[in-house]
Amino acid sequence: MTNSHVVSQMKKPANNDFPILDQLRDRWSPRAFSDRLVDDTVLGALFEAARWAPSCFNVQPWRFIIATSSHEPTYKQALSCLTEWNRNWACNAPLLLFVIAKTTYEDGSHNRHAYYDCGQAMTSLVTQATTLGLFVHQIGGILIEQVRETYNIPSEYDPICGAALGYIGPSSSLSEKLRKKESEPRARLDLSDLAYVGTWGNSALLVRKK
Amino acid sequence: MTNSHVVSQMKKPANNDFPILDQLRDRWSPRAFSDRLVDDTVLGALFEAARWAPSCFNVQPWRFIIATSSHEPTYKQALSCLTEWNRNWACNAPLLLFVIAKTTYEDGSHNRHAYYDCGQAMTSLVTQATTLGLFVHQIGGILIEQVRETYNIPSEYDPICGAALGYIGPSSSLSEKLRKKESEPRARLDLSDLAYVGTWGNSALLVRKK
Repeated sequence: MTNSHVVSQMKKPANNDFPILDQLRDRWSPRAFSDRLVDDTVLGALFEAARWAPSCFNVQPWRFIIATSSHEPTYKQALSCLTEWNRNWACNAPLLLFVIAKTTYEDGSHNRHAYYDCGQAMTSLVTQATTLGLFVHQIGGILIEQVRETYNIPSEYDPICGAALGYIGPSSSLSEKLRKKESEPRARLDLSDLAYVGTWGNSALLVRKK
Repeated sequence: MTNSHVVSQMKKPANNDFPILDQLRDRWSPRAFSDRLVDDTVLGALFEAARWAPSCFNVQPWRFIIATSSHEPTYKQALSCLTEWNRNWACNAPLLLFVIAKTTYEDGSHNRHAYYDCGQAMTSLVTQATTLGLFVHQIGGILIEQVRETYNIPSEYDPICGAALGYIGPSSSLSEKLRKKESEPRARLDLSDLAYVGTWGNSALLVRKK
């Protein structure tokens, strides 16, 4: 079996009840990446997508730190900020990034929307990535204080999470345990459990099949 | 001038340096909505899009409360949870919603990714909305405790923000002050200020024009 066959098996479209945008349906979080590099024009488009996300008072609290496998010192620096579990597979991705939130407004008061708005920017980035044939695996397991120290991050900014980003690769590159996880179907709560009307728990949607 | 002319003037695509997905470029946050209702199939697609967002440990901390103008009691209930400033324009939108985060994991410990992941789900919803010709104006100015009490929201869930959603309408429906805001160009930080490499503040991007 060639790699291209393996890669084609690794499509995992959402099992959606209503039709949705291809990019939202086809996005998933692989651990197997190819060594194909992400070029600067693609990189520009990813952050451009993040840039135009909405935010509370348009303060745009999102910042990103990136590292590419083509520059070993900064790539190793980024890898060292992941938990060991994540380091073991993320080391195959050509691009690592960290999402950082500015947690204060200009007057120093707390911005309770900062994390939320960073999530908005990151999903714009991920949707753009999917549009360009890339995959992103976001990583909650980062060493927060190590990120802060490594990159000299000011106190009013918080590292939220990391991400591995690149073109998908053959799952044969993974350990058996991760290979199994790679092929697990995507699972979500029922649509009827997500949106309520009138009072908590009162489902707003009559769910129909597409 | 007919309404359709006014509406066509109200396109505000991003002034992007790199090309991005149409839905990310064309999304903006209007205050003028038409009274056209959002049908149930569209509504289903919006929450379907949110549903397939990624989240830390796949806990899917996002919940939504919605109210449609076609059902006056629940619509008024939702409007009463906005600050007065936002109530004044959001009352024209056919759909109001609130984004609610489950802030704890199953074992009761704090989920520091909850707001971030709700932002991810909401941006998926907004991207789907844009795909279907709808616009969304998210609202930071909600009365948080009133949302909690009105909808009997459990203590481990936090109201994050609200949103007005619908088809765009003529800005002539707005006060002069809001009409001016409606036509202001969209502004963002420079791309070069968003992504760093190696250390804080060291721009990762050589910004080129598309």
